[in-house]
Amino acid sequence: MERAMATEGRNGAMAAAEGRNGAMATEGSVRCPANYIPLTPITFLERSAVVYADQKAVIDGEKTYTWKQTRDRCVRLASALTQHHISRGDVIAVLAPNIPAMYELHFGVAMAGAVLCALNIRHDAAMLSVLLEHSEAKMIFVDYEFLQVVEKTIEILSSRNKDKLSPLPLVCLITDLGQSLCNSSYMEYEAFLDRGQIQYQIRWPVDEFDPIALNYTSGTTKKPKGVIYSHRGAYLNAIAAILSNDFPSMGSVYLWTVPMFHCNGWCLAWGMAAQGGSNVCLRNVSAKAIFDRITANKVTHMGGAPTVLNMMVNFDHKPLTKKVVIMVGGAPPPPEVLFKIEEQGFDVIHGYGLTETYGPATFCTWKPEWDSLSRQERAKLKARQGVNHHGLEEVDVKDPLSMKSVPADGKTIGEVMVRGNTVMNGYFKDLKSTEEAFAGGWFRTGDLGVKYSDGYVQIKDRAKDIIISGGENISTIEIESALFTHPSVLDAAVVGRPDDYWGETPCAFVQLKEDFLNVSDKEIILFLRSQLPHYMVPRAVIFLDVLPKTSTGKTQKFILKEMAKGIKSKTTPLSLREMKNKNSKL
Amino acid sequence: MERAMATEGRNGAMAAAEGRNGAMATEGSVRCPANYIPLTPITFLERSAVVYADQKAVIDGEKTYTWKQTRDRCVRLASALTQHHISRGDVIAVLAPNIPAMYELHFGVAMAGAVLCALNIRHDAAMLSVLLEHSEAKMIFVDYEFLQVVEKTIEILSSRNKDKLSPLPLVCLITDLGQSLCNSSYMEYEAFLDRGQIQYQIRWPVDEFDPIALNYTSGTTKKPKGVIYSHRGAYLNAIAAILSNDFPSMGSVYLWTVPMFHCNGWCLAWGMAAQGGSNVCLRNVSAKAIFDRITANKVTHMGGAPTVLNMMVNFDHKPLTKKVVIMVGGAPPPPEVLFKIEEQGFDVIHGYGLTETYGPATFCTWKPEWDSLSRQERAKLKARQGVNHHGLEEVDVKDPLSMKSVPADGKTIGEVMVRGNTVMNGYFKDLKSTEEAFAGGWFRTGDLGVKYSDGYVQIKDRAKDIIISGGENISTIEIESALFTHPSVLDAAVVGRPDDYWGETPCAFVQLKEDFLNVSDKEIILFLRSQLPHYMVPRAVIFLDVLPKTSTGKTQKFILKEMAKGIKSKTTPLSLREMKNKNSKL
Repeated sequence: MERAMATEGRNGAMAAAEGRNGAMATEGSVRCPANYIPLTPITFLERSAVVYADQKAVIDGEKTYTWKQTRDRCVRLASALTQHHISRGDVIAVLAPNIPAMYELHFGVAMAGAVLCALNIRHDAAMLSVLLEHSEAKMIFVDYEFLQVVEKTIEILSSRNKDKLSPLPLVCLITDLGQSLCNSSYMEYEAFLDRGQIQYQIRWPVDEFDPIALNYTSGTTKKPKGVIYSHRGAYLNAIAAILSNDFPSMGSVYLWTVPMFHCNGWCLAWGMAAQGGSNVCLRNVSAKAIFDRITANKVTHMGGAPTVLNMMVNFDHKPLTKKVVIMVGGAPPPPEVLFKIEEQGFDVIHGYGLTETYGPATFCTWKPEWDSLSRQERAKLKARQGVNHHGLEEVDVKDPLSMKSVPADGKTIGEVMVRGNTVMNGYFKDLKSTEEAFAGGWFRTGDLGVKYSDGYVQIKDRAKDIIISGGENISTIEIESALFTHPSVLDAAVVGRPDDYWGETPCAFVQLKEDFLNVSDKEIILFLRSQLPHYMVPRAVIFLDVLPKTSTGKTQKFILKEMAKGIKSKTTPLSLREMKNKNSKL
Repeated sequence: MERAMATEGRNGAMAAAEGRNGAMATEGSVRCPANYIPLTPITFLERSAVVYADQKAVIDGEKTYTWKQTRDRCVRLASALTQHHISRGDVIAVLAPNIPAMYELHFGVAMAGAVLCALNIRHDAAMLSVLLEHSEAKMIFVDYEFLQVVEKTIEILSSRNKDKLSPLPLVCLITDLGQSLCNSSYMEYEAFLDRGQIQYQIRWPVDEFDPIALNYTSGTTKKPKGVIYSHRGAYLNAIAAILSNDFPSMGSVYLWTVPMFHCNGWCLAWGMAAQGGSNVCLRNVSAKAIFDRITANKVTHMGGAPTVLNMMVNFDHKPLTKKVVIMVGGAPPPPEVLFKIEEQGFDVIHGYGLTETYGPATFCTWKPEWDSLSRQERAKLKARQGVNHHGLEEVDVKDPLSMKSVPADGKTIGEVMVRGNTVMNGYFKDLKSTEEAFAGGWFRTGDLGVKYSDGYVQIKDRAKDIIISGGENISTIEIESALFTHPSVLDAAVVGRPDDYWGETPCAFVQLKEDFLNVSDKEIILFLRSQLPHYMVPRAVIFLDVLPKTSTGKTQKFILKEMAKGIKSKTTPLSLREMKNKNSKL
């Protein structure tokens, strides 16, 4: 690209045409700034500031910003960052819920040529200090709710840093609108913006492969990895999400239930600017808040992990007056939950992906011929992870050693692998892990799945979660799906428990609905026997008040595995009361 | 890209990060086949063959092909081309209307690594021979309707070629379904496909800037130029057209009224595969055929030049039962025509572009706040060319010498310029023209226009068509728009006529509706005086049976200019009868 740019208007040789065999119809071609610009989501915002100038871009309660205002604020943010000596490629961290500043940072930081590192608001100071050190963040923007934990983080960093010369990250405090923090010793976000110049020259990426974000994987693995996103990948994944969710070119209203710190809100933090929809902020996610916002802001689209959907289907609310499209992802959704949410008037689009794939990589694109199938069959089809979206090149299920595709029989388990432009650049400062992840020219997801004859893929389990019992692979997801069909079950998770004879046996953890607290483990086991082959039925069912979750709604199975190990007797599972006591240790 | 591919999984150095100042958060990044694939519309088809496998891809009367079938046919086409020694970068010509083979060639040729050159079916043998020679086409696919002209073309080429060694293009004949041409000496398209192997390894582009198509500009300029399209540009322009026209992810039905040889059907030949819609073929475009197809195939989207819209609004038909989105482009549409077509139940999306911008580059994106304006105001707003789409980076109106933007006042005329990834690679074998077109880092459209305070652009005229009269710039488009508001006017065009005193004065050519043939030139002139400033009113109004058009519906003003020169008297324009006689010379 750089070389091509240097030849602007003078040199007709195509950089890529050199040294190639065969004639190429390229004589007269020039690659120059008139016809080759690095792809970047910054373009979306620049365009929306004109096309959707006076439309609502960001809605935060009573406060709204238009697209023109949002663009101006982002440019001033970029300008202020540059004034504070932020250079191209520097990392800027943020710890905030889904508030306007969080949205603006997605563009402002990129416009300064810097890299956004949106941190999980559930991290503690110890974890934050590790991530800030690893990312070498030059600044951290922090919402007032999380100032304390950041102060503690800075303390940890400065105590570690006594002998070192590397400066601590600057703190910029995001206060609530109108909130006065005169006695604060920190720069305040709005004051910081005020220093920025609207005439600022945006630092466009030099190459579209340049980093735009650094996202640490959430806590289902022990050591968080810093996943590098490029401008190109962010642009293409945002477009793919728009196409797959049918965001119209005018008038969409997106409710921010998915945290923006999670894969940059599945790339829609950038994507919403492409179609000029409205972003409805949501500081705290609850079923009530969701339904209130849907009504008040005429929400058209939203997203959520299965746990959010589960929360919604169990909340008593008025029927929707208009369809709301809900993209579900982050964990395989139990078919029963998908069903119930659709019965409430939502259109569910089921997506699958990982932090490494910018969030959604596949969608279970619905086919009209499935409409006439039975409820059960439809639910099963919709729970599949589906097919690659427009931005991804391919999804396949392969033998991880031979790299051969498994037969598309819906049965043979292999590793789900993907390749395409919406796969990360790599793991920051961890070339070894990058190379392992990309070995063979595919990104190895670590998820085990099957491929059906129609090309749709279904996840059976995380490689580390699948239960191997007497030589049989048992998908914990399948058992969980069966559990969700029992009327008493509010939430459920299954893990493998070590067993001297079988190797492992399934152990179920269940959260009951309030009106069903008298249901017994035996009842559940009997029910499952009517639903599943005998070898898949859990030997033990443990009742918990609530299942341990990551901030993004994934059940923390490593905690449950530890609990399962601790259960002595196979035949007499703990009573609810015993479990509750045990539970309080979590 | 090639270099990056060679480092697969081994080398963490980002190619583009070399020699750059400042830290880059890229350590651990790898550019490899897992995360970097050249953008190409071939991906759309590969994906649709899975996602939309059994949906209708191509509909041609009673005959339909699914997406899986279409993909298979395209792969076999690519395979057969390779068997016929077609190499990467070779040019393959086609002369055909909007039939299934034309659609398949858009993918099949690209899958063979070759470059599609879709020729205008209105060209004569002399012109075709020039284009085949210039493009060095190795093969030509020809629809049976156009075999004669191609035979004549080959004759011309072989007579010119007597002393040369370069082989003549192979001819492959596309017959109608079931049509027997046993005594034909040509390869037949279906037989050609049959030779192809479904196991063929697709020749993916090595670089996304590789050429995918070669499109000769239509006859509004004297010397056709070969515009080179890249895989990257085709991918991005197709996506932009989908987003701007709100093609849904399932169920769109596109009626092929725009010739696929015109900017590859405004890139929708590829784009329809991205969302898996159905392509309704149309061999001959007429108002009756259009309305018949809309009803029979439940058309949701179509496109057309203003001349097609004009034809439709003057056709007596039943009201539409469902909205049809119609993308209008190719020439600035008279507001009156836009209005009437909307009143018939069409949703008009007005786009603007040139062959050099892959078809549409801007769209006049509609804003909800305009809904409440008066009929006239709405029509004026909608007739503007608008704002850049998602694939283009910028559109601006500039002084062509200083390259400064003109004030956004809706008045100051400058040259419309664009830059972005959906601008051509260049003119084939014409580096000088490429460099001229890209001078200053922008593509100079040759169109004169203004920019409004809301950032929307409006074309006032082609640089060569604008009338300079007594030092005033007169937009012929504005006069034409006024003419279309007169109830008698079916079609109209205005050109400059040399004038000793004023330099030039406007001269109008009008085609009257059948019921209004008694309208006089004086009546028209009086009417225009009530609509326009005096200096803009044509001194002469000439009635024609039909205005000369290019195949893509643009009025051939160079013919009208010649006619205008020939008109002796300023004050006594030719009568209709005199004009008719004169007319027969055309």
